Amino acid sequence: MNGFIYDIPVKVYFGRDQLGHLGEELRKYGSRVLMTYGGGSIKRIGLYDKVVAEINKAGLQLFELGGIEPNPRIDSVRKGAQMCKENRIDVLLAVGGGSTIDATKFIAAGACVDFDPWDFIDLKKRAPIEKALPIVDILTLSATGSEMDSGGVISNPETGDKIGRLSSKLLPKVSFLDPTNTYSVSPYQTACGAADMFSHIIEVYFNMEQDLYMLDCFMEGMMKTIIRFAPIAMREPDNYEARANLMWTSSWAINGFIDGGRQLAWSCHPMEHELSAIYDITHGLGLAILTPRWLEYCLDETTVSKYVQFGVNVFGINATLPPMEIAHKAIECMSHFLFDTLGLKSTLTEVGIDESHFEHMARKAVGGGTLHGFKPLQQQDVVNIYKMCE
Amino acid sequence: MNGFIYDIPVKVYFGRDQLGHLGEELRKYGSRVLMTYGGGSIKRIGLYDKVVAEINKAGLQLFELGGIEPNPRIDSVRKGAQMCKENRIDVLLAVGGGSTIDATKFIAAGACVDFDPWDFIDLKKRAPIEKALPIVDILTLSATGSEMDSGGVISNPETGDKIGRLSSKLLPKVSFLDPTNTYSVSPYQTACGAADMFSHIIEVYFNMEQDLYMLDCFMEGMMKTIIRFAPIAMREPDNYEARANLMWTSSWAINGFIDGGRQLAWSCHPMEHELSAIYDITHGLGLAILTPRWLEYCLDETTVSKYVQFGVNVFGINATLPPMEIAHKAIECMSHFLFDTLGLKSTLTEVGIDESHFEHMARKAVGGGTLHGFKPLQQQDVVNIYKMCE
Repeated sequence: MNGFIYDIPVKVYFGRDQLGHLGEELRKYGSRVLMTYGGGSIKRIGLYDKVVAEINKAGLQLFELGGIEPNPRIDSVRKGAQMCKENRIDVLLAVGGGSTIDATKFIAAGACVDFDPWDFIDLKKRAPIEKALPIVDILTLSATGSEMDSGGVISNPETGDKIGRLSSKLLPKVSFLDPTNTYSVSPYQTACGAADMFSHIIEVYFNMEQDLYMLDCFMEGMMKTIIRFAPIAMREPDNYEARANLMWTSSWAINGFIDGGRQLAWSCHPMEHELSAIYDITHGLGLAILTPRWLEYCLDETTVSKYVQFGVNVFGINATLPPMEIAHKAIECMSHFLFDTLGLKSTLTEVGIDESHFEHMARKAVGGGTLHGFKPLQQQDVVNIYKMCE
Repeated sequence: MNGFIYDIPVKVYFGRDQLGHLGEELRKYGSRVLMTYGGGSIKRIGLYDKVVAEINKAGLQLFELGGIEPNPRIDSVRKGAQMCKENRIDVLLAVGGGSTIDATKFIAAGACVDFDPWDFIDLKKRAPIEKALPIVDILTLSATGSEMDSGGVISNPETGDKIGRLSSKLLPKVSFLDPTNTYSVSPYQTACGAADMFSHIIEVYFNMEQDLYMLDCFMEGMMKTIIRFAPIAMREPDNYEARANLMWTSSWAINGFIDGGRQLAWSCHPMEHELSAIYDITHGLGLAILTPRWLEYCLDETTVSKYVQFGVNVFGINATLPPMEIAHKAIECMSHFLFDTLGLKSTLTEVGIDESHFEHMARKAVGGGTLHGFKPLQQQDVVNIYKMCE
């Protein structure tokens, strides 16, 4: 069992009617605020006006950068970093989902350097992130967990890359998590978000390194929470209990807590990033398609015990059945949840992806070598998994 | 469902061989360090020498206050605060269990004021805690969770009080949690620690306010972790996996995370504090004796659903049985765990407590009014519960 450092100093205001604290939190960092957001849904739900009112009330000066795209692009980061420099911004306020927050993280870092912010991301350069402007966020989509983690994923359409980067400097200072801000999320996006957070847990849970049983229990609890509340949130978009459970789960699924000392790489995320880098599909949907096939591919006598634990504790499968039978049933239950309950498309073909880029994407997913995850995967393994998804 | 603020910026080094980080962490706060500890067990296990070596290596100046008692007393706090002032201490280093860390918290606050630190605790005064010296700790006993929470409990033998106080200013900056530092904890103290952390969870879990299902899952996971690993740690004191699971559970059982928006008062802790204030028994033992009786006392048609959830999810009781039957079985399972598996004494009589102070203790436990916990308790209710423990 490995040691680890736990260090997640994000302050979270959770629940309705917490926005009254926004002004006081922003003011801790200065008076010039750059608000970032996406396609404008925050205007439709009335959140934009509430935020502006709080900022005015606190006597802060507001600058704005809207239009940050899903699978956020380096050009938005460049534009935001430039705005920060030109306007001597003190603090960033990201209002949106994971894409907006991810882009804002690299805007915050880009504002502090003279070089192109793509150099932070580019696998050949990986410029050190030594400082970043402070970030406050208001979350509007439960999915990526960016509100409580230190990472972000940025796409570069010119190079065809979609790459993540972690740095403790990118951790938000304060996150406002109001479940009512997710009431307008469509059933489809709710399903994709649920699949995304489910995958974050699966990537850590399926791991043959021995680690803390307590953390396995937490992960099983979060998976049960998603299974219980995602369908409710899809049917009843303004069910507070469902939205609240999904929201807090999204943060804890990926803030690093459940990792304990586990050091293995993730598997489905790198495979998916290549899909959405080329085809711009929704990240959670790509993960949903890949995850059950990846689990099927990795199942053997050396790994079956983890599937048994998963099947029994998460799906309530009878523990007295033969291990391989439990494992297959567990994968079936998971596929049923993703494709029937959440109603997500189940094949790459259905989302318009064919095999033409499989080799290329697989090579990039394994970084030209081996992906050291739950089971080590080489380029050909990833191609095989993509093919299972057709 | 209530909102809440999550704010736990404690950095934790978890695992073996993390002490190399001690110097760098202390140095962030200054060069003059007051190390506090208890009866000297840290010398027997060799930890004292390791800590002194790290402090010397970092070029820090060391001052010492040993002899902090279990159920720590205000006199130790007074002495420590005085030492801090006289020696212009920059940072406190608590090396020990909850008692040492609790005392150190109030030493840290007392060092910053000119009045008697009992004024922070005294229910009639409750002097505001506006600042405190920074605290780093090295935990040697998994029980109270003081290493990651903002509270402490101090006894005053002159007044017969044992009172807790919370303040975010008292939160440790850094905690070193090395499970091997608990290898020398006796089976009896391991059992008392397990009962203490179990009780911290029960106090929050048994609550009829609707809150996040996800957090209920986490609490059930932690209770299962304690049930699984406490007996192993008692039998095999140097079982790393068992000690590690208990250690991380002790922190998360009481750092505030599982509370979510629950606002009800705790019940067994105030009842127990009166016992140990007068009789100086081990806190975890007092809690073990009280908890099953309190649960029996609070069981009725309005509360039974919580017992059913507890019995089914923590002890695996058949969910198809009648609710009241599940509830009684759940209390039995819990008593079996506390008194048979952990081997703790099960009655007040066995620990030398008779009814002579029941009325007095019950009046203090309810603060002269009503204890607004899982079920509201008046003085007579608490007397009844004490009597059930005879």
